[in-house]
Amino acid sequence: MIIESAELFAEQDLFPFFKEMDETPAKYDGKGSVTTHPQLKKIIQFAAEQHWIGGSASFENGGLQLPEMIFNTGHHLFQAANNGVQGYLGLSSGAAGLITSFGSKEQITTYVPKIFSGEWQGTMALTEPQAGSSLTDIITTATPTNNGYYLVKGQKIFISGGQHDACDNFVHLTLARIEGAPAGIKGISLFIIPKFRHETNGNLVYNDVYCVGDFQKMGQRGYSTTHLSFGDNNDCHGFLLGEPHKGLGYMFQMMNGARISVGQCAASVAMAAYQASLQYAMERPQGRLPNEKDPSQPPTLIINHADVQRMLFTQKAIVEGSLSLAMECNRLYDLTNACETEERDTYFQLLEILTPIVKTYASEQGTRSAALAIQTLGGYGFTTDFPVQQHYRDLKIMSLYEGTTGIQSIDLLGRKVTMHNGKALQVLGKTIQETLQKASDHPILQPYSLMLDAEWKRLENVLSHLQKYLVNGDTGRYLADACIFMEMAGYTVIGWQWLKQASAAADILANKDFSTFPAAFLQGKIHTMEFFFTYELPHAAACETILLQNKSLTQVQTPDIFAY
Amino acid sequence: MIIESAELFAEQDLFPFFKEMDETPAKYDGKGSVTTHPQLKKIIQFAAEQHWIGGSASFENGGLQLPEMIFNTGHHLFQAANNGVQGYLGLSSGAAGLITSFGSKEQITTYVPKIFSGEWQGTMALTEPQAGSSLTDIITTATPTNNGYYLVKGQKIFISGGQHDACDNFVHLTLARIEGAPAGIKGISLFIIPKFRHETNGNLVYNDVYCVGDFQKMGQRGYSTTHLSFGDNNDCHGFLLGEPHKGLGYMFQMMNGARISVGQCAASVAMAAYQASLQYAMERPQGRLPNEKDPSQPPTLIINHADVQRMLFTQKAIVEGSLSLAMECNRLYDLTNACETEERDTYFQLLEILTPIVKTYASEQGTRSAALAIQTLGGYGFTTDFPVQQHYRDLKIMSLYEGTTGIQSIDLLGRKVTMHNGKALQVLGKTIQETLQKASDHPILQPYSLMLDAEWKRLENVLSHLQKYLVNGDTGRYLADACIFMEMAGYTVIGWQWLKQASAAADILANKDFSTFPAAFLQGKIHTMEFFFTYELPHAAACETILLQNKSLTQVQTPDIFAY
Repeated sequence: MIIESAELFAEQDLFPFFKEMDETPAKYDGKGSVTTHPQLKKIIQFAAEQHWIGGSASFENGGLQLPEMIFNTGHHLFQAANNGVQGYLGLSSGAAGLITSFGSKEQITTYVPKIFSGEWQGTMALTEPQAGSSLTDIITTATPTNNGYYLVKGQKIFISGGQHDACDNFVHLTLARIEGAPAGIKGISLFIIPKFRHETNGNLVYNDVYCVGDFQKMGQRGYSTTHLSFGDNNDCHGFLLGEPHKGLGYMFQMMNGARISVGQCAASVAMAAYQASLQYAMERPQGRLPNEKDPSQPPTLIINHADVQRMLFTQKAIVEGSLSLAMECNRLYDLTNACETEERDTYFQLLEILTPIVKTYASEQGTRSAALAIQTLGGYGFTTDFPVQQHYRDLKIMSLYEGTTGIQSIDLLGRKVTMHNGKALQVLGKTIQETLQKASDHPILQPYSLMLDAEWKRLENVLSHLQKYLVNGDTGRYLADACIFMEMAGYTVIGWQWLKQASAAADILANKDFSTFPAAFLQGKIHTMEFFFTYELPHAAACETILLQNKSLTQVQTPDIFAY
Repeated sequence: MIIESAELFAEQDLFPFFKEMDETPAKYDGKGSVTTHPQLKKIIQFAAEQHWIGGSASFENGGLQLPEMIFNTGHHLFQAANNGVQGYLGLSSGAAGLITSFGSKEQITTYVPKIFSGEWQGTMALTEPQAGSSLTDIITTATPTNNGYYLVKGQKIFISGGQHDACDNFVHLTLARIEGAPAGIKGISLFIIPKFRHETNGNLVYNDVYCVGDFQKMGQRGYSTTHLSFGDNNDCHGFLLGEPHKGLGYMFQMMNGARISVGQCAASVAMAAYQASLQYAMERPQGRLPNEKDPSQPPTLIINHADVQRMLFTQKAIVEGSLSLAMECNRLYDLTNACETEERDTYFQLLEILTPIVKTYASEQGTRSAALAIQTLGGYGFTTDFPVQQHYRDLKIMSLYEGTTGIQSIDLLGRKVTMHNGKALQVLGKTIQETLQKASDHPILQPYSLMLDAEWKRLENVLSHLQKYLVNGDTGRYLADACIFMEMAGYTVIGWQWLKQASAAADILANKDFSTFPAAFLQGKIHTMEFFFTYELPHAAACETILLQNKSLTQVQTPDIFAY
């Protein structure tokens, strides 16, 4: 029922404005705010009423206690229908979650209900012009006062959903450095900074947070990206969230959720492009099969061309594989909330190691997938008459949001693989082994089960090669090819998800109960798994070849080697 | 001197309008024409004066007899500076060349000087709405009259440079079917169809060719893409070019030139994106190296990060590899013009087999290269403040123009590889062997020479596997993975180009004469060759794995397997 209501909302209120919001981008009004499409305010209000901002929160905090799996399945539909709009909702949801986790009772009651009602927009304010991805170098300052608040001063850029005309107030969760704090990431604190703050009499007054401009983008043009200036008049009150100097750790609760959400969003947008190209391929007659060249015969539908099927199966393999992994992450998130102690730790470690992978695989391969959607439509795909080019443009930001592919890859190889003596990797290996065992029950899946087993060993082989650099203290060389390692891990993990899907499909096919899933759908799952293992997985071996070489070609000390 | 003048033109007259032309797209005026940026008319006139439309034509036809190598080096600079604008010039140049090759003396004198002067625009009109890439299914009709002309009737779409306000007249080289012609491609003729035709008294009168609309696109927005309607009032005169029913063969002279030009354009646009990202990387401080994490130390320039170097070298490997192959094709084109009989045949066959490869490698990998340019800039790369996102959008059309990647791949595997009993492939193999031998003179190049030799054998191995399908008459299965074969051939051929460049660089380094090329430039060539062989070439082996499998996963007869 809940997912059906999400589907209706996506179809009726989001998708019809997808193109329009691209053609009339959110735009800075020159006066401290961003003008958005008139439909946005209605969408946010309707989403709030239907609990699509606060639905996964607890009853006591005004939510429905929806599992993340269900809540994010709804959001998947919004992302597929109109990904920019979903950003506004997702940000508010994440910001409220962060306040709920680490805020005081008073902070929760002040901000969370207003965010859940859609009146106020939550944002995350990390990036600064001079620091970029390097949060170590954040210089926004917070000066303590005797009145319980801090005076904040600084610049933040790339703030999605920053001050716009579809909400009344904004709650910026902002990283800043308390005066005298240690240098580096150990001196970063997290502040709640509303655009309008409550005075002691309860009135709202302007809090000296000014939107000084926006960024126009090649995609997600309906989604505002702003530059915020805090404390130009020395009157920006920041309210410390949790304890001082622990801000980055807190922020990473929201950041990790956002990374999974970006991965899921990339999968969803690529899914929309895939489905648009599939529909086109099933309706468009053109050309003839190689053995049937008689020009007096009518042309065939393009879906009958092998190369078009290759493009469609590649898309299906990428988008359903990515979405499956995103849902796996949502499930693990629910399990970490539902379980305790050791069991919880296991799920949490698995979630930790999968987070950079889902974010990166879905965004990098999703972009490739959307390129194939364009290619399936031929010249038409490049025109604004069809949505696939918008999907393609929108998708490119997913490999940049919330830590670029480079950052995610260093997170995977430099932190997640090594943490707790490699415990997370062991848990992942064990979980994959369980899937392999289960798949082996079905004779048709056995060869693929063996292939995936070999892929896992390949990954371990590469790691033991790379760890030699670590042992020698050469972290630079260890991490130099982190992106290639990420690419390889992505193929392996998505192979696991496909084997899992194929195994479930084979179970149902064996039981011959087609009441929920038609046989063609199940056969399609097995076929696409075979396609993934045959056409995509071989590139993991190429990554291995690259990772096993001993040269240091990307650590050149003389940039003039790039001379042209 | 000629190339310097091209550089000046590109810098002063083309690049300054690159962004503006994107932001104010060419747009249908509702009255049979397209409104373009005001600068376009000036650019075309200036280009014509400087011989950048007709420069490679013979003296007697008003040209400078510039070799294609020189002429296209100029155009490379235009493509890098403002690729949409170059399209107008390139089309005119190609159309005039086609008329010169196959037209009567009268046709040449009527059209060519006007095209070379920039007053008239040449176009190629092949695609029809119902036929798309399948030229077999062209239905535009040409009815003979007793007055030497044909009456043409039909619709053509995706006509680049179709009727716009920057030229006075248009010369559409149009494929149509003479009444009673055989079905299929053997019944297609080529016509010159001007927008305004000469009456016997020499006056120009409207020729019943109407621009009925345009296509708005995600990139190349300054370059008009039109829908033309011929003969709505039964008064569209078409003038037969050459003999009846041989039109497709003629058209392929222009088409082959256009394919090389698209490949070169893709390389040029990706080059512009690469250079923009390189400049950014050399100026932007951010983060610290893995072994130098002291936050009190200033951040390093991002070019010092291994992952940024990986992205830059990947781009350099792709763009300089592609451009090198495009220039190889231009050189072969010149050689086929300069040589005779057997020698000419050899160059021509080499050119024939390289044409689909340069078009496809440069466009597909160029797109990936431009994605890395965006990634190098991080979030800024996605904003309209930087040109790389425009390069990325513009590039996506290159894999669609003049035959999609699917079409090029079938051309390579289905036609070029098999023609004359595999002669073209043998010539390519022999030419690559010559490069290998020469490279082996330098000990540092020997390992790469061996690698490339192995890659060539891999390609032959794959072909002998695929040819079993052909022998069994299963053309469908033979061609099913043509795109994977194309990808593999691309790696091998670009590997050859890199070895050739590295070999030339090693020669100069050995002679220690740095008067023309600085040592860093030469070392950069050798280093990038090593990078290409280490990071890119291993994926050719993955293609081999895919191509050697015996399944038929992309020839499914039941599209409901795609059900979701």
